[in-house]
Amino acid sequence: MDLLKKKILEEGSVEEGNILKVDSFLNHQLDIAFLNEAGKEFKRLFADRKITKILTLETSGIAIASIAAQYFNVPVVFAKKIATKNLDRETYESDVFSYTKGRTYKIKVSKKYINKDDHILIIDDFLANAQAALGLMDIINKGGATLEGIGIVIEKGFQDGGQLLREQGVNLKSLVIIDSFENGKVKFR
Amino acid sequence: MDLLKKKILEEGSVEEGNILKVDSFLNHQLDIAFLNEAGKEFKRLFADRKITKILTLETSGIAIASIAAQYFNVPVVFAKKIATKNLDRETYESDVFSYTKGRTYKIKVSKKYINKDDHILIIDDFLANAQAALGLMDIINKGGATLEGIGIVIEKGFQDGGQLLREQGVNLKSLVIIDSFENGKVKFR
Repeated sequence: MDLLKKKILEEGSVEEGNILKVDSFLNHQLDIAFLNEAGKEFKRLFADRKITKILTLETSGIAIASIAAQYFNVPVVFAKKIATKNLDRETYESDVFSYTKGRTYKIKVSKKYINKDDHILIIDDFLANAQAALGLMDIINKGGATLEGIGIVIEKGFQDGGQLLREQGVNLKSLVIIDSFENGKVKFR
Repeated sequence: MDLLKKKILEEGSVEEGNILKVDSFLNHQLDIAFLNEAGKEFKRLFADRKITKILTLETSGIAIASIAAQYFNVPVVFAKKIATKNLDRETYESDVFSYTKGRTYKIKVSKKYINKDDHILIIDDFLANAQAALGLMDIINKGGATLEGIGIVIEKGFQDGGQLLREQGVNLKSLVIIDSFENGKVKFR
């Protein structure tokens, strides 16, 4: 997606530890006009699939999932990262290991909002080790629903998540794949 | 907003401790068609104001702020609740006391995304004690920006946040105000 490449090159920066910062449009400030273009692109990429629900993970997946959902005319469900007072006791849960934070956390979705008739598209902002995606897939599986695909805004191609999911036959589409950060410069696949 | 009252009566439930659960459309599953109607209503309510940016707080404000932003043609900034690796060192910060969790937490916005030329509309899902709103107003103030108003989906009129903000002259508009939960039944103002 050329618009996204342009935004990454113009607005992104590569920080210590190969962290790509896209705070100006995706992770802290949200460029809603851009998210609409990304949403349209996800619709184009998954046009052949029957989608009944979009599943994402709080926090940074919520905006892109919500905007994209408008092009699919479906609701969004976001998995929650911690137990909160307001969450149903009846939840599907999975454990996710965060390499960034060096610890495992639990994600939960109420059983009310995933069921066996659902055809689910996972949407998230980043894909690196695919730990979050695997957790969401586990929840979809526990709910007896069907995974139709995974749409990612930025895939870090130099980490193994993308390969791992594709080898499992997952219908994974990323708007851009970054192959490396050479001397702080982003190299796209 | 009649559509919202209908959704609260049909889909909401009142849990122990006067907690209103609207998980089916606002806090866990997101009814994007409804959020669009709410977004249009915010635009109508704040049509007389020049808005350059919408400010909200992770997590549950992000979806409604993002959908509403489409009607204002402005970006969204969401304040973050904890320090993360990816956040700028240069941030405006404020402390927020959570009555639900019984503790104070810090909220942060990068200085890059709030400046003195900004005319800001705060959008959030709930208003109760207004602690989050006051924290966001503190950040707007620190950034030298102008607060144009606060748009709330559901105001709990039996808690003092709404009164407190209106007495300060804040241009506060709530899509519905709930006056009480009598025997588990929602009573609107």
